[in-house]
Amino acid sequence: MQVPGTARRLRDVGEFGLISAIRNITESSRVRSSGVVLGVGDDAALWRPRPGRIVAITTDTLIDKRHFRTDWSDAKQIGHRALAVNLSDLAAMGARPRTVVVSLGLKGTETDRWVYDLYRGMLALADRSHARIVGGDIVHSPGALTISITAHGEVHPDRVLRRDQAQTGDIIAVTGPLGLAAGGVRLLTEKRTTVEGSPSMLAAHRTPQPRILQGILLGRAGVRCAMDLSDGLLGDLPKILAASNVSAEVVQAQLPIPHVLTWNFGEDALELASRGGEDFELLFTASPETFERVQAVFRRFRLRQPTAIGSITKIRGYDGPAISMRLIDRRRETVQPGAFDHFQR
Amino acid sequence: MQVPGTARRLRDVGEFGLISAIRNITESSRVRSSGVVLGVGDDAALWRPRPGRIVAITTDTLIDKRHFRTDWSDAKQIGHRALAVNLSDLAAMGARPRTVVVSLGLKGTETDRWVYDLYRGMLALADRSHARIVGGDIVHSPGALTISITAHGEVHPDRVLRRDQAQTGDIIAVTGPLGLAAGGVRLLTEKRTTVEGSPSMLAAHRTPQPRILQGILLGRAGVRCAMDLSDGLLGDLPKILAASNVSAEVVQAQLPIPHVLTWNFGEDALELASRGGEDFELLFTASPETFERVQAVFRRFRLRQPTAIGSITKIRGYDGPAISMRLIDRRRETVQPGAFDHFQR
Repeated sequence: MQVPGTARRLRDVGEFGLISAIRNITESSRVRSSGVVLGVGDDAALWRPRPGRIVAITTDTLIDKRHFRTDWSDAKQIGHRALAVNLSDLAAMGARPRTVVVSLGLKGTETDRWVYDLYRGMLALADRSHARIVGGDIVHSPGALTISITAHGEVHPDRVLRRDQAQTGDIIAVTGPLGLAAGGVRLLTEKRTTVEGSPSMLAAHRTPQPRILQGILLGRAGVRCAMDLSDGLLGDLPKILAASNVSAEVVQAQLPIPHVLTWNFGEDALELASRGGEDFELLFTASPETFERVQAVFRRFRLRQPTAIGSITKIRGYDGPAISMRLIDRRRETVQPGAFDHFQR
Repeated sequence: MQVPGTARRLRDVGEFGLISAIRNITESSRVRSSGVVLGVGDDAALWRPRPGRIVAITTDTLIDKRHFRTDWSDAKQIGHRALAVNLSDLAAMGARPRTVVVSLGLKGTETDRWVYDLYRGMLALADRSHARIVGGDIVHSPGALTISITAHGEVHPDRVLRRDQAQTGDIIAVTGPLGLAAGGVRLLTEKRTTVEGSPSMLAAHRTPQPRILQGILLGRAGVRCAMDLSDGLLGDLPKILAASNVSAEVVQAQLPIPHVLTWNFGEDALELASRGGEDFELLFTASPETFERVQAVFRRFRLRQPTAIGSITKIRGYDGPAISMRLIDRRRETVQPGAFDHFQR
């Protein structure tokens, strides 16, 4: 029995002690209606999706020093973030999160309390998102702490959000501000402290909020094309353009760049907002009529209004999909897609 | 365009080149009836399970030098093995595999061809198992090559195999020989070559065969209790006993120990067969009548007959579940559960 307030080494707790404590944490879930038939403890979890729904499946792996840093975020924040990244992908499909499995590769030098806090961070977000942690795997990974999550959601087949459904004439919009998370990373990298403490930027990096309700409401309002922003606007918008075989015009002056970015980073704010990744806001396209419906629905649910940032256009010439940016001085610039290659850096 | 026969460094191929080539491999699947609505390429995959079925979800992570070795197995074998470990968990639930997602953490020093072969190994087994690889994630993991898979299957709610359903009087049985995989690992560790080349032991380690059809047929024959053997008979049987709150008697002389183990390892053969892990045979319990039905069904499908190795008994006294082993000399021994702790070694 663990005495509250102590932290022990994993080798003293043992694999089975660890698994049993984690099981207690995940079973303290407050979610009752996820359709889970059998949770942690057998060879596989059993889940009964609601009749008539399609299952959305997404997986994302986070690795210490590449996707998070244990000196930048505490265990709960890292747990939150690892799950948020996955739930955000479900949100981007318009799906309602239901079940989650977690594969953890531990170095073996962590304390048991650190691991429990990681799960508590995941559980808190899972609870708020009406999802259950139903299983997983824990392995010894001396080379690097690794968190690999697969999340499952349900979506009505007529309300799916896809990347390949953008239509010429659609408005391009985002559900929230751009660049906050990248601003947070820059503050942490440069070890800068700011006058106001920058809670919004640090929180955007440490505990991003997946836009689950927004995704569901977009699908309900008639939107068919969306994705979540993980590689930055100019890294992700090209993926919609390529999948839908269209081009885009983006209006710089309409980008929702928060003042806190401009105050702290001056002219770099635009770069952070347009190329900085991991905002996990939804990027979507909608006809003007559908966009009005979205505004009305978001108002009814007291959600932040989406921001229109441009429009979908026909492809010109033979060059394939392109982004034309209308700059503040009214010049136009064809923007290099800023997608970011994890092996070529 | 890759010239066949060349192998390139990942940094020359780039993340997007790699993902696009992998997508081509996974889309060459021959499986047509898995219910997949949308595969690789969007924020999440979409899958429609058959009406009335429950979804079984399992996840397992394999890490280089801990769960496989690139100098012991080639890329195709490692891909096969990583998927087999997961499909075996579905088999242990009596579920039919349907969809798979793969999270890959690459060191960055692999060649592109090695990665493609890994996927080809997975695809070949997925094809034979009627499952589709529908998505995944590729990250840069400088510390260790990591393969994390989540597999999804379907099972009729009345035909689920669980760990907590063993009944006093049940026969305990296994679907195949014990110890071959552990024998293969020992040969590789000791760099031993044997006269006969030991193909069965090496294959049991490198390319284990998940007992999918056996699991489905067990459920159909009325079996309710099973698991797959990953931590060895004396490591895994205690999990059934603890979940079902029963004890067991195992008859040493009935353990299906292949001759090749005895030839090569003499008296160690028993240890390898009873405690050696990763055989991925199914361990199940069934009433004598159900066991006869299993024998008949397996005969009809021309599957190897299951081997009865003991029986489920009541718990005696206050010590909780225990395994009593009847030895060849008719002595009895209470066996220490041999479960193996990955953090305490």
